Amino acid sequence: MTNTALWKRREKALGPTYTHFYDQPINIVKGEGVWLYDEKGNKYLDCYNNVVSVGHCNPRVVKALSDQAAILNTHTRYLHENVVALAEKLSSKFPEKLDTCIFVCTGTEANDLALQMSKAITGNEGVIVSDAAYHGNSMIMGAMDQRREDFGGANWLETFEPPNTYRNPEGTAESFADAAQAAITRLEDNGMGLAATMLDLSFDSNGILIAPDGYASLVVKKTHAAGGLVICDEVQAGYCRLGDHWWGFEKYGIMPDIVTLGKPMGAGHPVAAVVTTREIASKFAQIDSYFNTFGGNPVSAAVAKAVIDEIDDRELLKNVTDVGAYLKEGLDKIADKYDFVGSIQGSGLFWGLDLVKDATTKEPMSDSQLSQITTMIKDEGVLMGSTGRFDNILKIRPPLVFSKENADQALAAIEKVFSTL
Amino acid sequence: MTNTALWKRREKALGPTYTHFYDQPINIVKGEGVWLYDEKGNKYLDCYNNVVSVGHCNPRVVKALSDQAAILNTHTRYLHENVVALAEKLSSKFPEKLDTCIFVCTGTEANDLALQMSKAITGNEGVIVSDAAYHGNSMIMGAMDQRREDFGGANWLETFEPPNTYRNPEGTAESFADAAQAAITRLEDNGMGLAATMLDLSFDSNGILIAPDGYASLVVKKTHAAGGLVICDEVQAGYCRLGDHWWGFEKYGIMPDIVTLGKPMGAGHPVAAVVTTREIASKFAQIDSYFNTFGGNPVSAAVAKAVIDEIDDRELLKNVTDVGAYLKEGLDKIADKYDFVGSIQGSGLFWGLDLVKDATTKEPMSDSQLSQITTMIKDEGVLMGSTGRFDNILKIRPPLVFSKENADQALAAIEKVFSTL
Repeated sequence: MTNTALWKRREKALGPTYTHFYDQPINIVKGEGVWLYDEKGNKYLDCYNNVVSVGHCNPRVVKALSDQAAILNTHTRYLHENVVALAEKLSSKFPEKLDTCIFVCTGTEANDLALQMSKAITGNEGVIVSDAAYHGNSMIMGAMDQRREDFGGANWLETFEPPNTYRNPEGTAESFADAAQAAITRLEDNGMGLAATMLDLSFDSNGILIAPDGYASLVVKKTHAAGGLVICDEVQAGYCRLGDHWWGFEKYGIMPDIVTLGKPMGAGHPVAAVVTTREIASKFAQIDSYFNTFGGNPVSAAVAKAVIDEIDDRELLKNVTDVGAYLKEGLDKIADKYDFVGSIQGSGLFWGLDLVKDATTKEPMSDSQLSQITTMIKDEGVLMGSTGRFDNILKIRPPLVFSKENADQALAAIEKVFSTL
Repeated sequence: MTNTALWKRREKALGPTYTHFYDQPINIVKGEGVWLYDEKGNKYLDCYNNVVSVGHCNPRVVKALSDQAAILNTHTRYLHENVVALAEKLSSKFPEKLDTCIFVCTGTEANDLALQMSKAITGNEGVIVSDAAYHGNSMIMGAMDQRREDFGGANWLETFEPPNTYRNPEGTAESFADAAQAAITRLEDNGMGLAATMLDLSFDSNGILIAPDGYASLVVKKTHAAGGLVICDEVQAGYCRLGDHWWGFEKYGIMPDIVTLGKPMGAGHPVAAVVTTREIASKFAQIDSYFNTFGGNPVSAAVAKAVIDEIDDRELLKNVTDVGAYLKEGLDKIADKYDFVGSIQGSGLFWGLDLVKDATTKEPMSDSQLSQITTMIKDEGVLMGSTGRFDNILKIRPPLVFSKENADQALAAIEKVFSTL
């Protein structure tokens, strides 16, 4: 089967909403650790996929999945040790107050449920999210996605400028937080009130940003003053991604009311979670009910627990911190060399290079040029992506098992491609 | 670990929205075929769990899951054979027109996406569902769930009386369809218009009903006349559940615009789908985009394909039809014997016994009495559930691999418990 033939069959059988990376999509047939292999045996260093954070086909995770699937897979309306053990293990990674878990299947489901909880508890309807945010694909979460054609109609939704210190160099913690306050005020003025502020503290879809010190605390304060809850969407920032801490909110020293987890939680297996305080979970339970058929089933729970154990036993948080710092050094050198690298922002093993046509005007490179760049990097055997409001950010987000040697290879590929531009 | 200790740990670690079957929840530790086992080795005949339709821990499904998980798990932004092979296999089970698949993780996600598609394509906002319907737990789908405290506020939602020929014996195909038309008219009158009619043709949450001949066609006609789309939610009715046909809509000889699949599709693995026409999928793609990280990944696709292969190779559709007819004979005999069995409705391996306090007034038995009955049946080593508007329907919905011998055991347990009431 040639790729072209497979591609044609795919176009016929799947909906046209399916898109693919690279103009000539690659056919990935095998994964191992940080490596992906195509059907011809070509080997790619994965610097894109955060879902498999503990490495492709991690043996411990595969074993946990296979062993439990052969014994039992049901749901949480019977007792089972696994979901309890997972909840206990997961809670132990959070501040004591965040002690209550609800399991779902996807980050979308987690965010959607977190919002249902926020609305039920606060009695308010409104939500604020950063401009160009992405929090999922359900009807409600999708409404927050400005890339969608029909964005902008919802009277319960207001957006605010994210804390981009490269594109808004005059911005301070206070001025950026004021933008969030203005969004809250618009919701109060139109009678919706604030149910929740959704925060992805990696600011992935905003281009991967580091907020000024004190910004996140100010947003939390303003949210609470308006009677809203703070939902930290840790689908991107969590699970050690940013280094030094397990969670993005710890990096910023804030205490969210609700945390949502997704992608890396099951290393590809669809498992996700809402983690919150007992008080919030209890209030919600008094008002509403929730059951998720697959959420927290014995297999999903075994997988999610194996992922945490793997991160702990292999000390992957330390690895992210160390290799992340090493990677940043290399990226800084590249940035110094090429004017079109306007800014490098990120943390741990999550970096964004804001690529520009002109260093003075900061006009973003076109998305088609980014697409050329990621393709050229792919042709060097390294997989990276793009993100941001203008899709001009080169996105580097490898599995957490990434080594310094891997970083060298990634940096060499960037360097080689950048040198030809 | 005693059950009490596990239960206490569970209450501490999980949200209080978690509920369980039976006042003294059972701790299920192992599954095999139609059997579940608790921690003491007690064996239960499973007459409840439709998710594992090909049997608990089906060896072919477990092998497909384990083998693929050890090789690769990514997403649909690279090419992969599995998702294409699954889409082709799945489409082959549908009328030719329904040839386009979009994969997601849960029935909720499938229904939520189907509704997004319907709204985008029709330009209308309104939805009609049967009274007491259940179509999922996202914010939008949950709004359709009348069991929820805050039900009734949505101006885009209207409900209609389901075609219950036991409780409305005067009802005809026409009069029941007129109730759907009245709901459509209310949406037209309030300016919402009709985007979609959501139909679960097993009428599970309505108590498991068989609609009069011609009813479904009339609802389709009225829906289309109002400019809406027909979404058949086959999470319950599909995958051979009702016997004779793969899908509930075939039983009624109608052609839906969109079909949604869920629970049994992955035998417990979170995989679900939207199946629709190329025309609808294309129109949607022109208006909007959709991507689901886990949906249709190589592992989920391998599992979902193995489930279809298992149904085919073991001729489970024929089994459902045959054993279903056998089971019905036995249930009819029980109904003849006990006045409190008001009605038996269902098809294939999905049956509901409408239990009443009084055969003349048809006053439903209380939900607490149903809970007692299912507990007593459980104590006989057989697992059944309850459903319906008043939760007074004894629900029998075993895996599709159910045998006549299993049916005998289930019938004996019902008989034994009923004889004591």
